[in-house]
Amino acid sequence: MSRRSLHTPAPDAAALRVRLDRARAAAAAAGTDALLIAPGSDLRYLLGQAGGSFERLTTLVVPAEGTPALVVPKLEAPGYADVPTDDLGVELLTWVDGDDPYKLVADRLGKPGRVAVSDFTPALHVLALRAALGTAEQTLAGPVVRELRMRKDAAEIASLREAGAAIDRVHARVHEWLRPGRTEAEVGADIAAAIVEEGHVQADFVIVGSGPNGASPHHDVSERVIEKGDVVVVDIGGPLPAGYNSDSTRTYAVGTPRDADVAETYAVLQRAQAAAVAAVKPGVTAEAVDAAARDVIAEAGFGEYFIHRTGHGIGLDVHEEPYIIAGNALPLEPGMAFSVEPGIYQPGRWGARIEDIVIVTEDGVESVNNQPHELVVLDA
Amino acid sequence: MSRRSLHTPAPDAAALRVRLDRARAAAAAAGTDALLIAPGSDLRYLLGQAGGSFERLTTLVVPAEGTPALVVPKLEAPGYADVPTDDLGVELLTWVDGDDPYKLVADRLGKPGRVAVSDFTPALHVLALRAALGTAEQTLAGPVVRELRMRKDAAEIASLREAGAAIDRVHARVHEWLRPGRTEAEVGADIAAAIVEEGHVQADFVIVGSGPNGASPHHDVSERVIEKGDVVVVDIGGPLPAGYNSDSTRTYAVGTPRDADVAETYAVLQRAQAAAVAAVKPGVTAEAVDAAARDVIAEAGFGEYFIHRTGHGIGLDVHEEPYIIAGNALPLEPGMAFSVEPGIYQPGRWGARIEDIVIVTEDGVESVNNQPHELVVLDA
Repeated sequence: MSRRSLHTPAPDAAALRVRLDRARAAAAAAGTDALLIAPGSDLRYLLGQAGGSFERLTTLVVPAEGTPALVVPKLEAPGYADVPTDDLGVELLTWVDGDDPYKLVADRLGKPGRVAVSDFTPALHVLALRAALGTAEQTLAGPVVRELRMRKDAAEIASLREAGAAIDRVHARVHEWLRPGRTEAEVGADIAAAIVEEGHVQADFVIVGSGPNGASPHHDVSERVIEKGDVVVVDIGGPLPAGYNSDSTRTYAVGTPRDADVAETYAVLQRAQAAAVAAVKPGVTAEAVDAAARDVIAEAGFGEYFIHRTGHGIGLDVHEEPYIIAGNALPLEPGMAFSVEPGIYQPGRWGARIEDIVIVTEDGVESVNNQPHELVVLDA
Repeated sequence: MSRRSLHTPAPDAAALRVRLDRARAAAAAAGTDALLIAPGSDLRYLLGQAGGSFERLTTLVVPAEGTPALVVPKLEAPGYADVPTDDLGVELLTWVDGDDPYKLVADRLGKPGRVAVSDFTPALHVLALRAALGTAEQTLAGPVVRELRMRKDAAEIASLREAGAAIDRVHARVHEWLRPGRTEAEVGADIAAAIVEEGHVQADFVIVGSGPNGASPHHDVSERVIEKGDVVVVDIGGPLPAGYNSDSTRTYAVGTPRDADVAETYAVLQRAQAAAVAAVKPGVTAEAVDAAARDVIAEAGFGEYFIHRTGHGIGLDVHEEPYIIAGNALPLEPGMAFSVEPGIYQPGRWGARIEDIVIVTEDGVESVNNQPHELVVLDA
């Protein structure tokens, strides 16, 4: 018997009530009869509690019309004791082994025309719900829920600022651990401990990409021993107790960089990142922010070495809407939060990336990460 | 940019090759043209690497006929560098932002009649694959993959023994921390640290259910202060580096139990758990093991207080097949591994549970947990 422990502060009932009402209105506007929200960050957004995700069905039924219901195994119901179901007007429907929870959902919904499941609902439940709901069209709830989630309210913005300050404190301490003769894994373990010390629930990711490993954007850590002259990408983050995530990258040099092209190339990257941040304001599109970084890098002749999108939204998930990528014509609005993280990757040699989380304000942009953007040259 | 770090030993290529070949044969036998395996424990079982689960599609395409392929975002491909794709005969198909990975899968499969997605594939990909695969029937891969995964090979059994010994060492130390005046959360934090000290990657779950909280089977920890006379359910576990999980429950008393009915009731529970373990051997059904525990408890008049199934399979997942539950007529076979964990829960007063992980042997049963089964009465 087991469930992942999740003890964290939750938003107040009034804030949750606003979110649930918006979700119902958004479902109605999308021509969807009900949203079925599985455990995870969508559920946490709506109920203040992420729940556990196991083989037994738990789902929040949010009908466009009528009373929402949390369908949950009776065994797991105590885990939702902190959810203010009465204040939210959410009915609790428990079931026990032997019951058919999919039929419970279907009976609740009658004869819906279209039902949306949340994006990370396991296939196990997706297919069973499809069968139980007969002729109803099955769609994704993501497009509906992300319309809400990508516009952060004041409490969420405060949480993101707190997360940014926490990870900045870790970057300010990287010089304590990043030295020649240590492995990436050793440095990463120290950084992971500091991430927790500085207030995170856990270190969700720790990338220490030294020398040629820095040219692989999704490298994490390895047994490679750091050498004098290495350029090192350090990309780190995790959730704070309120559930909101940090994510920030700085690039370090262990002594004077070995490769003669580092200073000039890094300067291009720094200009690109600053240009993209400066481009952020309401009305500008996501793809225009991507282009602002990409154009600087391409004009300097490094276009082929910037091999990923410029950024991703962040909040209760490390990756969420809006994505800062070519083809995304979404106009930015106040309250949207995302990373701006261009990189230049020289295969087999070295790489660099600079990443801040920024928030769109009424008339521009606020960065929650404020460590210096220069290449950080450490003693070695 | 981020991915969850996963640095862990992997089975050798020969063992993986056997698993992949069996998966293809099982798919063919089930009339399924291909299995699509998402990141997670199914992928780890087949490739030795669980991968990350993000919004970009990663899937292992296992056709009943033809060459398997790992479809993976180019950015995330370095994370699969340890997978012996050449030895396994698995082709690597990378894609970049802007490509349609679902079409890549569909093109690979031609015109399949039936395609199975792994049980925890996110709805995001389930619905997109369904659309891309046109008229193909979409089913779950779980029934195919679990036929393989629930029969552990020698290396897996060795891993489960190691996990059992590790969590036994933690239970042997619980007396160091479980004392009156401390909160469940404080005790739980000490236990969590010990779970890691004793060789686990992390503490996946720590239930410290004291007094009335012990009567809620899925309680985890709370701010309740432990009192002299409390009965306390301690249910703990996590994965070892090889990925296999521990899970064991013992029930403690902090000094002489406050409630006069504890000794007699606990004795019933202990008999029930022993009876269920003793019932395990090849050919006996899963439901017969459940009944062996349930009958003892019901005959003693506590039937209504045993509110969950007797057990769950365990391996790379904490909960997997076979489930030890009424209605499961599956005959047990050598190599199957599962928990035997009856409980008696007195609402509002106290609860008790005893849980061992057992493995079906050629002629009986082996328990990987060997701490004493008696109520452990601690000094207080």
